[in-house]
Amino acid sequence: MQNFEFYNRTRIVFGRETQNNVGALTKKHAKKVLLHYGGGHIKKSGLYQQVTDSLEKENVAFIELPGVMPNPRLSLVREGIALCRENGVDFILAVGGGSVIDSAKAIAAGVPYDGDIWDMYVSGVPPTEALGVGVVLTIPAAGSEASVGSVISDDSDNNNKRAFNHEMLQPQFAILNPELTFSLPPYQTACGASDIIAHIAERYFTRVKNVELTDRLCEAALKTVIRNTQKVLQDPNDYDARAEIMWAGTVAHNNLLNTGRIGDWASHMIEHELSSINDVAHGAGLAILMPAWMHYVCKQDPALFAQYAVRVWNVEADFGDLELTALEGIRRQKDFFRSIGLPVTLGEIGITPAHYERIAQNTRRSDKDTVGNFVRLRSEDIMQILKLAE
Amino acid sequence: MQNFEFYNRTRIVFGRETQNNVGALTKKHAKKVLLHYGGGHIKKSGLYQQVTDSLEKENVAFIELPGVMPNPRLSLVREGIALCRENGVDFILAVGGGSVIDSAKAIAAGVPYDGDIWDMYVSGVPPTEALGVGVVLTIPAAGSEASVGSVISDDSDNNNKRAFNHEMLQPQFAILNPELTFSLPPYQTACGASDIIAHIAERYFTRVKNVELTDRLCEAALKTVIRNTQKVLQDPNDYDARAEIMWAGTVAHNNLLNTGRIGDWASHMIEHELSSINDVAHGAGLAILMPAWMHYVCKQDPALFAQYAVRVWNVEADFGDLELTALEGIRRQKDFFRSIGLPVTLGEIGITPAHYERIAQNTRRSDKDTVGNFVRLRSEDIMQILKLAE
Repeated sequence: MQNFEFYNRTRIVFGRETQNNVGALTKKHAKKVLLHYGGGHIKKSGLYQQVTDSLEKENVAFIELPGVMPNPRLSLVREGIALCRENGVDFILAVGGGSVIDSAKAIAAGVPYDGDIWDMYVSGVPPTEALGVGVVLTIPAAGSEASVGSVISDDSDNNNKRAFNHEMLQPQFAILNPELTFSLPPYQTACGASDIIAHIAERYFTRVKNVELTDRLCEAALKTVIRNTQKVLQDPNDYDARAEIMWAGTVAHNNLLNTGRIGDWASHMIEHELSSINDVAHGAGLAILMPAWMHYVCKQDPALFAQYAVRVWNVEADFGDLELTALEGIRRQKDFFRSIGLPVTLGEIGITPAHYERIAQNTRRSDKDTVGNFVRLRSEDIMQILKLAE
Repeated sequence: MQNFEFYNRTRIVFGRETQNNVGALTKKHAKKVLLHYGGGHIKKSGLYQQVTDSLEKENVAFIELPGVMPNPRLSLVREGIALCRENGVDFILAVGGGSVIDSAKAIAAGVPYDGDIWDMYVSGVPPTEALGVGVVLTIPAAGSEASVGSVISDDSDNNNKRAFNHEMLQPQFAILNPELTFSLPPYQTACGASDIIAHIAERYFTRVKNVELTDRLCEAALKTVIRNTQKVLQDPNDYDARAEIMWAGTVAHNNLLNTGRIGDWASHMIEHELSSINDVAHGAGLAILMPAWMHYVCKQDPALFAQYAVRVWNVEADFGDLELTALEGIRRQKDFFRSIGLPVTLGEIGITPAHYERIAQNTRRSDKDTVGNFVRLRSEDIMQILKLAE
């Protein structure tokens, strides 16, 4: 186990009707709020009304900035920063999924910063302070509701996507009501599950030895997501199954599961390039790439991949051939993704061999860089992984 | 799953040599510190010197209050409160195990409180503020380093033991270096493991249905503690095994594992009475009581106890007789405790049937009270459990 620090200040308020506490929770942190959200979905569902009623009941003043899109854009972040400064806003309330939360975090860090917020994403300039952020979560997937991270795309520069991680980006609170996820369509539910599974798997596949507790915590979260995704696709209004996925989605990404270990993250980085080509949902891209990545690298540590196959996918171990055991686990994971309606090959999302070189080049960002920690992938490795994903 | 709130602000700083960061960490929170500890052990080990060197290097002023005993006493807490007020102390640094930390928390809550600190423990009066607490942990067991709880005994009243839980009691930081636990003797190591196992099991056995993620997280932590306790007893200087136990001990009690569920806690409450009779170590008392409690109540939910037996103790399920499966799990748990050198019968610690009625009466505290949540135990139930522990 490696030395580590673990800190997570986000207060989770979980359960039925908890969105009605948003006014009281916000009041503890805010004088004036920017209510940040996407489009009309929260108005149609009634959530917008519930949130604004709760803020008004507690006399919390707010202004609004809707319009967050998937792959949240730098231009809207800048607009939000200006709006907050003009109006003396001191707290951002994000109502939505990962994109809305990531956008809210960027605004929160940008308001008190003298320079341009994009500096943080490009050069890692740390914030010295940040406004507080609160969350009412509608999509369990990204885990941004209790994470240190934010991913923003520069819409003036070919949607150049950059991630920034800092403890100050952890929200003050996150309201998680599984009922709010009943209306998620099956495909979006499946994409969310795939994203959650990937967040755990990226942490699981590590070169650090002797990390038994976190191995087992990861396996616990993975099994829960796998089983309950199947339940939710059978019955979208299964509160308990929705609750398991929602809570697992937060635990998957709040950094507990990588304490003492070093995650990989190559699949996430390659997936960002897939999304930029054809706007495939992040979870769908990951469903295609993760098994291919696993297939390509598993021979580097067959014991770890066999453990994963046995403990997560209930494969019977072949102690004489751990790689075979590992491959059977990967096959079952791919079958699972297929069974929940996700694509598992690049062809299904219109990515052809003609795209591979561009994907491989862009993923590395510079000629010297490699991608990932479990195996440091070079261009030719990425090309091989893309071939395995055909 | 039940609605819940989860909040834990404690910054964990984990790994080799991390005690040398204590000065820098303390400086962020403190102007003047009360250094609180037990006896000579930390002086002999060199830890006292490392901690005071680190504080001095960062120019953190401190005064000292040693003398915390197991089952920390109210009189010392009151002495600490007076000392802090006289000297303008604004932060308590606890160097030791659960007793030292619990005592530090009581002082921290007591200093800014107008009334008597014992009010909080007896009547649950919540604090409106509390000094900050930092921890350098030397014994993985109680989990107090990141918990909301503190248990204090009134040494002027027959060591009347009371627990108080409040979010404000969560330490600001906890330094966890597994190397500091190499010198723990085997018996104390085993008692710590039993305490950790009990913290998880108390949360595991619940009437709340559909709590799959937390079931599995509990099982993950239990398996880790069981396996690594055996390793550590073989080789006390096994860093990685010590690290697994230390981190599991914190996760066991930081409230993550009971999100959405209601724990039982009867075994803990009965154990407090055992300790008051013959000063048996808490973990040893729990090793005797937990299996007896499980035996007595498992017929109320054989499926849950069978799940525990199968997933934690690797029992092969007898699907035609889940209670038999459950009992085999309990037997293995008892064998495990015996194998690590703990007592598993009341006779071994000198408790005889003559004590039972007093234990049963005192555990309930008043004629109307019952004990525990999984089954609400009355006196006659406690008597039965004690008989099963003979």
